[in-house]
Amino acid sequence: MGRLTGGDPSLLRRINSAVVLHALRGADCPTLTDLTRITGLSRPTVEGVIEGLIETGLVVESVAEEGGTRRQGRPARKFRFRAEAGHLLGVEIGSHRVAALLSGLDGRIIGAGSRDVSEAASEDERLERVRLVVADVLRRAGVARSSLRAVGVGSPGIVEADGTVRLGTALPGWTGLALGERLRRSFRCPVLVENDANAAAVAEHWKGAATDSDDIVFVLAGLSPGAGSLIGGRLHRGFGGAAGEIGALHLLGREVTPEKLLSTTDEPLHPLDEQAVADVFTLAKQGDFRAQAAVERFIQRLVHDVAALVLALDPELVVIGGWAAGLDGVLDPLRDELSRYCLRPPRVALSLLGEAAVATGALRLALDHVEEQLFAVERTVTARR
Amino acid sequence: MGRLTGGDPSLLRRINSAVVLHALRGADCPTLTDLTRITGLSRPTVEGVIEGLIETGLVVESVAEEGGTRRQGRPARKFRFRAEAGHLLGVEIGSHRVAALLSGLDGRIIGAGSRDVSEAASEDERLERVRLVVADVLRRAGVARSSLRAVGVGSPGIVEADGTVRLGTALPGWTGLALGERLRRSFRCPVLVENDANAAAVAEHWKGAATDSDDIVFVLAGLSPGAGSLIGGRLHRGFGGAAGEIGALHLLGREVTPEKLLSTTDEPLHPLDEQAVADVFTLAKQGDFRAQAAVERFIQRLVHDVAALVLALDPELVVIGGWAAGLDGVLDPLRDELSRYCLRPPRVALSLLGEAAVATGALRLALDHVEEQLFAVERTVTARR
Repeated sequence: MGRLTGGDPSLLRRINSAVVLHALRGADCPTLTDLTRITGLSRPTVEGVIEGLIETGLVVESVAEEGGTRRQGRPARKFRFRAEAGHLLGVEIGSHRVAALLSGLDGRIIGAGSRDVSEAASEDERLERVRLVVADVLRRAGVARSSLRAVGVGSPGIVEADGTVRLGTALPGWTGLALGERLRRSFRCPVLVENDANAAAVAEHWKGAATDSDDIVFVLAGLSPGAGSLIGGRLHRGFGGAAGEIGALHLLGREVTPEKLLSTTDEPLHPLDEQAVADVFTLAKQGDFRAQAAVERFIQRLVHDVAALVLALDPELVVIGGWAAGLDGVLDPLRDELSRYCLRPPRVALSLLGEAAVATGALRLALDHVEEQLFAVERTVTARR
Repeated sequence: MGRLTGGDPSLLRRINSAVVLHALRGADCPTLTDLTRITGLSRPTVEGVIEGLIETGLVVESVAEEGGTRRQGRPARKFRFRAEAGHLLGVEIGSHRVAALLSGLDGRIIGAGSRDVSEAASEDERLERVRLVVADVLRRAGVARSSLRAVGVGSPGIVEADGTVRLGTALPGWTGLALGERLRRSFRCPVLVENDANAAAVAEHWKGAATDSDDIVFVLAGLSPGAGSLIGGRLHRGFGGAAGEIGALHLLGREVTPEKLLSTTDEPLHPLDEQAVADVFTLAKQGDFRAQAAVERFIQRLVHDVAALVLALDPELVVIGGWAAGLDGVLDPLRDELSRYCLRPPRVALSLLGEAAVATGALRLALDHVEEQLFAVERTVTARR
């Protein structure tokens, strides 16, 4: 990192704080000498910054270890980043379930919970379910609500920058809902709302199947597929937040509806839910020809959706998530077909996070928000790609 | 722009040079006093920088105007950025024609030329045609080849970072060609090769139909469609340079080949070239039912391609270029269909640059390269989106 000399002294103090904080998080209980070496700052500067950070509660002097080698004289003071100084929530609000993950400021998960919810639930019922799950997770982890620094939320639909759901296809009742505003009544900290597939893409990049790539497409494969993409490691939301909303793609080819696509009779499959579809897949495995044909059509649809994304975006890696990822035999036909249609086929992998992907991504977005505050100055002076 | 004090003095000099150069390009023959005011630098600093820039040939003292108001005393010296201190070429190498645009360092076009070339021409013949066009343009403009600072080239196919064409569908003989390397033999300056649709997207953003948007998709609509996109004003090439290569999209729906699509008989249309297709469109206008059906199928295909791009990327604006843009009746059905399938339909416009788009974009890429050199320091210290 470049050093600035002169100029705004308070800016300089903030930069130095961020540098020391960053070093503290990366090292295991460093001493002042360690921090001086790592940061290149003078010892008095580091001492001043550390005192300030201790005052804010972000840093604490770590207790000297028993039986240390340094017996004589006063032991060197050691310091530790207090991940427990604040907490973050990642929340998924889906059509069938709501889930929450809790972490400290280091992003390490210390609590989790979920509850099923009916697809037909009203928005008030669904939000009440969220509050129950969150209260339960906080209580079991022994974390006070006032300790929350940010809450990330992943939910279906096109989400505006202010957290309003502009259009929800998976949850029609969600359309027009000021979801961010509603949730902010329950929390005193920032609430960040993101499209579910976008959140899941962030999650797989953070700690899932896409940790080694910055150019990925995540497909939330289900009856109404959505997708999220990272370009150069950054979430691509699109101009109006609708990037990856590929649910309407199949309409273009004048293809059949999902109900007809997955039917094993002359009638459309009804109700079209995950259980009904799983039954079709089971029948197919048992050798039922009509079920096998239905599965074939379903996979062909998925291939079509993914290929359109791949041709448009040219990612390095495609991650398949959502409940379809749990179905056998999705990946190989996808690879085969992509290699036929794409000039440069990407790698294809299954989600490693499974049904935790959306809440995990929501948590990461909350963590990003807090880190941007803690390290705001650093971000403005280091080069960004 | 932030000011740095202390630190590397040569870095500081380069920053100051870039600042003064930038001010010179934006002002009309400013005086030292003007430059001091615009840049906030001290007068001795500006004087020193100006002397250095005059030595490099980038700046010249402008001749005092006749009849100026300042008659008494020594007139204030005025300075001018020498756009003529270097030149740039933008070259299109297409399947049917090669074209070149020439500009000074300000990007103002001072020469243009083009020649037809057969689709069946060998790569040597095609490159020879390029050399002829370039030599002709330079000669007519009275510009020495040694004055060229950068050459941009737009051509079909997936183009690697080093200028090798990895896969060319419109020009099959182009596949595997080290196009950049071959062209670098003819020029002593950097040669930058880019996919044609990508170049055209850059051109429409620079001085075409997309000057008011940073999030655009440009569709080079033709028999083998390609697309280029800008995200936040920057070209999105994709991980492997293949983003927007949507030529294979139609295969996914198991649709018919272009030859069958555009046929007005029971036989495939052969040869399938622009003239043959234009004839079909003319027939359709004259009321031929089979031709009208063929045109309908063609437009439906285009709608399908564009919708897939729009759903994946969510741009603010779609610009339709390529020869299909010249056909009547493309835009309205496209708008209608997009509004049916896209959750948030983008604006749709026709290319304003027409057949000049690819060469214009190639020129802009060459200009970007030179400006990055001239203003390299500035770019590293100012905030980037």
